[in-house]
Amino acid sequence: MWFSSDNAGPAHPKVMAALAAANEGYAGSYGADTQMQAVRGLIREVFEAPEAEVFLVATGTAANVLGLATLCPPWATIYAHTHAHIEEDECAAPEFYTGGAKLTLLPGADAKIDLDALRDALDGTPDGFVHHVQHGALSLTNVTERGAVYTAGEIAERAALARAHGIPVHLDGARFANALVATNASPAEMTWRAGVDVLSLGGTKNGLMAAEAVVLFDPARAWEFELRRKRGAHLFSKHRFLSAQMLAYLQDGLWLDLARAANQSATALAEGLADLPGARMLHPVEANMIFADLPRRTHDALHAAGAHYYFWTKDPPPDALPDATFAARFVTNWATEPEDVDAFLSAARAA
Amino acid sequence: MWFSSDNAGPAHPKVMAALAAANEGYAGSYGADTQMQAVRGLIREVFEAPEAEVFLVATGTAANVLGLATLCPPWATIYAHTHAHIEEDECAAPEFYTGGAKLTLLPGADAKIDLDALRDALDGTPDGFVHHVQHGALSLTNVTERGAVYTAGEIAERAALARAHGIPVHLDGARFANALVATNASPAEMTWRAGVDVLSLGGTKNGLMAAEAVVLFDPARAWEFELRRKRGAHLFSKHRFLSAQMLAYLQDGLWLDLARAANQSATALAEGLADLPGARMLHPVEANMIFADLPRRTHDALHAAGAHYYFWTKDPPPDALPDATFAARFVTNWATEPEDVDAFLSAARAA
Amino acid sequence: MWFSSDNAGPAHPKVMAALAAANEGYAGSYGADTQMQAVRGLIREVFEAPEAEVFLVATGTAANVLGLATLCPPWATIYAHTHAHIEEDECAAPEFYTGGAKLTLLPGADAKIDLDALRDALDGTPDGFVHHVQHGALSLTNVTERGAVYTAGEIAERAALARAHGIPVHLDGARFANALVATNASPAEMTWRAGVDVLSLGGTKNGLMAAEAVVLFDPARAWEFELRRKRGAHLFSKHRFLSAQMLAYLQDGLWLDLARAANQSATALAEGLADLPGARMLHPVEANMIFADLPRRTHDALHAAGAHYYFWTKDPPPDALPDATFAARFVTNWATEPEDVDAFLSAARAA
Amino acid sequence: MWFSSDNAGPAHPKVMAALAAANEGYAGSYGADTQMQAVRGLIREVFEAPEAEVFLVATGTAANVLGLATLCPPWATIYAHTHAHIEEDECAAPEFYTGGAKLTLLPGADAKIDLDALRDALDGTPDGFVHHVQHGALSLTNVTERGAVYTAGEIAERAALARAHGIPVHLDGARFANALVATNASPAEMTWRAGVDVLSLGGTKNGLMAAEAVVLFDPARAWEFELRRKRGAHLFSKHRFLSAQMLAYLQDGLWLDLARAANQSATALAEGLADLPGARMLHPVEANMIFADLPRRTHDALHAAGAHYYFWTKDPPPDALPDATFAARFVTNWATEPEDVDAFLSAARAA
Repeated sequence: MWFSSDNAGPAHPKVMAALAAANEGYAGSYGADTQMQAVRGLIREVFEAPEAEVFLVATGTAANVLGLATLCPPWATIYAHTHAHIEEDECAAPEFYTGGAKLTLLPGADAKIDLDALRDALDGTPDGFVHHVQHGALSLTNVTERGAVYTAGEIAERAALARAHGIPVHLDGARFANALVATNASPAEMTWRAGVDVLSLGGTKNGLMAAEAVVLFDPARAWEFELRRKRGAHLFSKHRFLSAQMLAYLQDGLWLDLARAANQSATALAEGLADLPGARMLHPVEANMIFADLPRRTHDALHAAGAHYYFWTKDPPPDALPDATFAARFVTNWATEPEDVDAFLSAARAA
Repeated sequence: MWFSSDNAGPAHPKVMAALAAANEGYAGSYGADTQMQAVRGLIREVFEAPEAEVFLVATGTAANVLGLATLCPPWATIYAHTHAHIEEDECAAPEFYTGGAKLTLLPGADAKIDLDALRDALDGTPDGFVHHVQHGALSLTNVTERGAVYTAGEIAERAALARAHGIPVHLDGARFANALVATNASPAEMTWRAGVDVLSLGGTKNGLMAAEAVVLFDPARAWEFELRRKRGAHLFSKHRFLSAQMLAYLQDGLWLDLARAANQSATALAEGLADLPGARMLHPVEANMIFADLPRRTHDALHAAGAHYYFWTKDPPPDALPDATFAARFVTNWATEPEDVDAFLSAARAA
Repeated sequence: MWFSSDNAGPAHPKVMAALAAANEGYAGSYGADTQMQAVRGLIREVFEAPEAEVFLVATGTAANVLGLATLCPPWATIYAHTHAHIEEDECAAPEFYTGGAKLTLLPGADAKIDLDALRDALDGTPDGFVHHVQHGALSLTNVTERGAVYTAGEIAERAALARAHGIPVHLDGARFANALVATNASPAEMTWRAGVDVLSLGGTKNGLMAAEAVVLFDPARAWEFELRRKRGAHLFSKHRFLSAQMLAYLQDGLWLDLARAANQSATALAEGLADLPGARMLHPVEANMIFADLPRRTHDALHAAGAHYYFWTKDPPPDALPDATFAARFVTNWATEPEDVDAFLSAARAA
Repeated sequence: MWFSSDNAGPAHPKVMAALAAANEGYAGSYGADTQMQAVRGLIREVFEAPEAEVFLVATGTAANVLGLATLCPPWATIYAHTHAHIEEDECAAPEFYTGGAKLTLLPGADAKIDLDALRDALDGTPDGFVHHVQHGALSLTNVTERGAVYTAGEIAERAALARAHGIPVHLDGARFANALVATNASPAEMTWRAGVDVLSLGGTKNGLMAAEAVVLFDPARAWEFELRRKRGAHLFSKHRFLSAQMLAYLQDGLWLDLARAANQSATALAEGLADLPGARMLHPVEANMIFADLPRRTHDALHAAGAHYYFWTKDPPPDALPDATFAARFVTNWATEPEDVDAFLSAARAA
C-alpha cells in the first residue's frame, strides 16, 4: 500500500526489457545512439511537430530548469503558481540555472494559475523599466501540484496572455500523460497548438526508471539548450539507456496506457475515501493524486496496516483527538493494483 | 572493434541483474532506499573511512563539479592540469557550479601535474591579495586523460603542497578502479591517506549504466553537498536504481575485476600496436587508454575493417600521404574481448 | 519644486569641500587612504561597536546585495517585504549576487513586515528539507519604502524571530539617518542591539554624491565581503573620494542634521497636503516620504507649476475626470527649502 | 614621488570644477541628467560613430566585465593575454558577470597577444563541439599591462582573426587616451574601424575621480547592457556626477592632454632610469608605465628618499646583496611634475 508518490513505484517490465535489449554491444555516446534518432522521430510524430527538437535528461527538475533557462534571461521573471514544483520542490534550481532570474508567484484554485491574476501581474508590471525585472516566461504545470488538470483550452487562454506580452511558455509535464488521458486532448492540442514553446515531458513518474524529454517546439534555441545541458552536467555518456526508456515509453501508446491505469486507480481510491466518515476531499481528483482530510483515527488505522503516504502539510501532534482531521496526499501509479486500493480502503473503513 | 571510449561499451550483466532485482515493488525515494544504506556502508568499509559521506549521481561531470563547488568558493582558483577533463571536456561546468571560480592550468608529462609547476603556481600567487583570485583547491585526475597513472605516493606529494597552502584536494576518479589495479594501491592509500578530501568515484566507464559516487572523506560539508546536488537537479527520485548499480559494482570486487580486464586488454593492444611499422606510442600505457601515432595507411585499413576510435587531435586531410602519421586514442573497456584486439591488430598489420 | 526622489537633490557643500580637500596630492588606492581609517573609527564610535568592520561602495543596491550575499547562501531564501527595494527596484541584483537565492515576500502595512506573517513563514517552512530552499536571512528596510519607520523595538521583535530560526538580519538603511531622527533611537539601538548583523548605511539620498557604507557588526566574514566587493567590481581605486564623503557625512552629526531637515520638510508638506480638498494620505508620514491621493485637477495644477514627482502606481488616463484621484509619491531631501514647500502647496491650493 | 599607480594621483581641477557646477540644484536620476546627453553626443562625435551607445560606470573592472558579459555567453571562452587585467586583477569578476565563461590565456611579448598564438588558439579549438567551451570573444588591452601599445593596425590584425571565427572584440582601454597619443591614431581608427565592438574607455587613471565609459559601437545589445549594469548594482542614482566628470574629460581634448603629459613624464623617467648603473628596462616604454630591474642599493636609496612604487613581482629578501637586481613598476600620471622625476632620479643616482 504505497501511495507516497508515483516515484516510489517500479519501472514497467517493457522498459526493463528495452534496457536489456539496448545493452547489447557497443553504441555511440552522448546521444549518437540509434535509439535517440527513433525517439526524436516518434516525438515529432506523436506531437505532429516535424520541426521540434528533443533532448533527454534523467530528472524532472533538470528538464524544467534547462528549459526555463533557455527561455528566460537572468534579468527577467518567470510567472508560476505559488505551489509550482519549480517554486516549492527544486531548492532554487531555476534561479541557479537561469543565472538569477526571479519567480513571480500567482494564486489560483487547485494550483491552476488564476487567469485574472496572471493578467493583472502581466499588465501591472511595466516592461522596459530598468529597475524592475522584465517579463520572462510563463510556466504552467499539468497535472497541477494539487492533482487538477488544465484543459487544452485553459492552457491556451493563459499562453495567449503570455504571448500578448511577448514572453514564451513552458509546460512542466512531469505528469503530462496523466493530463492527456484525463482530457482526451492530443499531445499537439495540449502543447504547441495551445501556445506552449517548451515541454518537460515526464517519464520517471509514469513507469520509467529515470528519463524525461525536453521538447522544443521552436528549434531555434536547440544548440543553446544542448550547451546548457552539457554544462549542467546532464549529458549522459551512455545515452542509449535514456533513449531506450523513452522509446519503450512512447511506442504503442504505453505511456498513455500507464497513465490511464494510474488515473483509474486514483478514481477508485477517491471514491472510497469520499465515503469514509469524517473524510473531505480537498481538491478535485482529475488525475492520479488525491488530497483529503481524514480523521486521526483513520490515519492511525492506515499506518497500522502499513500504508505509505505523506501528511499534507503537517503531522498530527501526539495529543490530537481521534476525530480531528489531518490532510494527506495519496498518489497512485501505473503499478497500483485494485487489491492495493481495496486493502487500503478496508483498513480505513475499519477505523 | 570499438575503441572509441570506455563509455561506448555495455553495462555488466551483474549490473543489469541488480537493476532488475531492484525493480521489485516499492521503495523510498531520493536516497531513502535500503540499497543506498548498503552502498554507504560498503564504501566506508572498502575505503577504511567510517566517517565518510557518500552520494550518488549519474554523470562523471556532475560528480566532479558538485565536489569542486563544495570545496572551492567563487573567488578562488582550482589548480588542474591543462588537459584535465574539468578543463577540456565539461563546457565550463566547473565555472557554472562554483559560481565563477577559475581554473589555473598546469603542465606536466602524460597529463600528470608537474610537481615543480604546482609548487611554483602555489608559491607564486599571493593569497590574501584582494585583486587576485585566492587559492581554491587542487584537482588531480587518476587515471590521467593521457592514460598515465599516479601512484599513491605521487598523489600524496601533490596533495601535501596543496595542504601546505591550506587548500583541499579533489580527485577525479572517472577511471579510479583502473588506477587502483594498475598500482596495487588500496582505496584508502590512493585517497584520504594521500591527502584527498573528495573523490569522484567513477562507475559508468567501467561497467555501469550511469552511476558515479562522490565520497566526502570529511563529512563536515555533506549537507551543503546535498543541497548543491538537489539544486543542480542531480537528485534522483527513483534513487534505488543508482544505488543498485553502485552496490553491484563494489560487491565482491567486481569493479576491480572489470578494471583489470580493461587494463589487460589495453596492454595487449598496446604491445601489438608498438610493433607495427611506423607506429609510435605517445604516452606510457598504464591503464586502459592508448595514444599512438600510426601511418595513414594503417588508419585506412582499420577504418575499412570497421574499427571505431578517435583521431587525436586532428583528422588526416584528404591528401595525406600513406606514410604520414596521425595520432589516435584507443580505449578498452571491461567488455573488450581478446578477439576484438586480435581482429584490430590483424587489420592494422595487413595495411 | 523637485519631490521626485531624494536622489534628485544636490550634495551638501561640506561634502563638496571635503572632496576638494581630499584631492590634494597622492593617496593609497583601494581603501589604503587615511580617510578610510577615520571613517572606520568614527563608525565604530558612533555605533558603539568597536569590532565592527566597515566598507564603502557607491550605490545602495551594491551595499544591499553585497551584504546579503555575505549572509545568505544560494540555496536559501531571504525574507523581505513585498515592497522591499531588493524585490522591486534592483532588477534581481540580489539573485545575481547571492548566486541564485530566493526572496520570500511578506505582507505588512506601510511596507513594514507583519510580525505574524514573518512568524508563520519561518515556522511554516521546514528547514533541513532538501527539496525546499533553506532559511537564509531576514532583510528589513528602515525607513520603509512607504515612508513608515520601524522603532528599534519593532526591529528587535522581527530580528528575534529570525535569530530563533538561526538566520542573520540585514537592514537596508538607505534612509537610516531619517529613521534615527524620527525615532530618537541611537545607531546602536537601531542595529546590533536590536539584532541586526549587517547594515546598509545610506548616504547618497541624504546629501552625499555617491557613497554608502556597509557595516558588518560581526567581523567574521569581513574578508569574504571584501572579495565579493572586488569581484562585483565595486572596489574603488581612488577610494579616498568615497572615504571623504562618508567622513564629512558622519562628522559633527551632519548626517542627522540633514535627515532632520528632510523629515521636517516632509511634515510641513504633508500637513499642507492633508488639508487639500479631495486629498487622502495613504501612509503615515514618519520620515521624508509622502504617499497621497490627490484629485486630477490638483495634479494638473502642480504639473503646470513645474512640480516634479511620480504617480504611484499609475498615470491618470487622458480622459480622467477632474475629481478622480490618483496616488503620488513626494520625497523631500536635506536641500528642500520652506519656499519649495510653500510654492508647491500654493500651486495645489489654487487648483 | 608617487609612481605606484596612476590611480594614486588626484583628479584634475577642471574635473573638480565640473563636479561643483553639476551640483547646482536638482537633476533627473539614473542617467536622465542633461550632461549625459552631452556625453553621448560628444563620444559619438569624437569616435565618428553616430550609432554608438554609451554608458557610464565608476570602475574599470565594471566597464570590462559588463561589456564582456554582453558579448560572451556563459558557455564560451574569452581569449585574453596571460597578463590581462581581466585575468590577473579582477578576482574572477569576468567569470562572475558572464555567469561562468572561461578565459583562454595567450602569450605574447610585452603583454600584447601574439598573433600566431591567437590564430592557433582559434583554429585549434573546434567550435560547435558540445564538450568544449565555444569561441566567445577576444579581449585586447591598450595600453597593455606591461606598458606597450598596440597600433591601430595591430588591433585590426587581431580583431580580423576574431571576426573570421565569428566572435566579437572587446578593448580594455583603461589607459586608452595614453594609447591614442602614443600612436597618433584617431579614436575611430583604434576602435570600430579596427574591428572593436565594445570599448572600456578609461577616465579614472587619467584625471577623473571615478568614471569610465562603455562604448557599444553596435547598439543592438544596449538594452541588455543597461539591464546588466542595473543588476550589477552599477547604475548611479545621482548619475549627473558621473556625466560631469566624463564631459569635462572629453571637452577640448582634456583627456588627450592629460595622457600626453603622463606619457612624457614616463619617457623622461625611463631615460633617466636607463642610464643608471645596473639598470635594465624590461619592456619598451610606450605610454606611462615603466618596468625595470634595478639594483637593491638603488631601491634602498629610493625608498629612503620616500619614493612610492611596487616591486614586480617579488620583494627583495632581507639578505639580498646590494648589486642584486629586482624588478619594479613605475607609473606616471597627468599630475606628475618634472620635479618629481628629477627628485626621483637624483635619489637613484645617489645610490
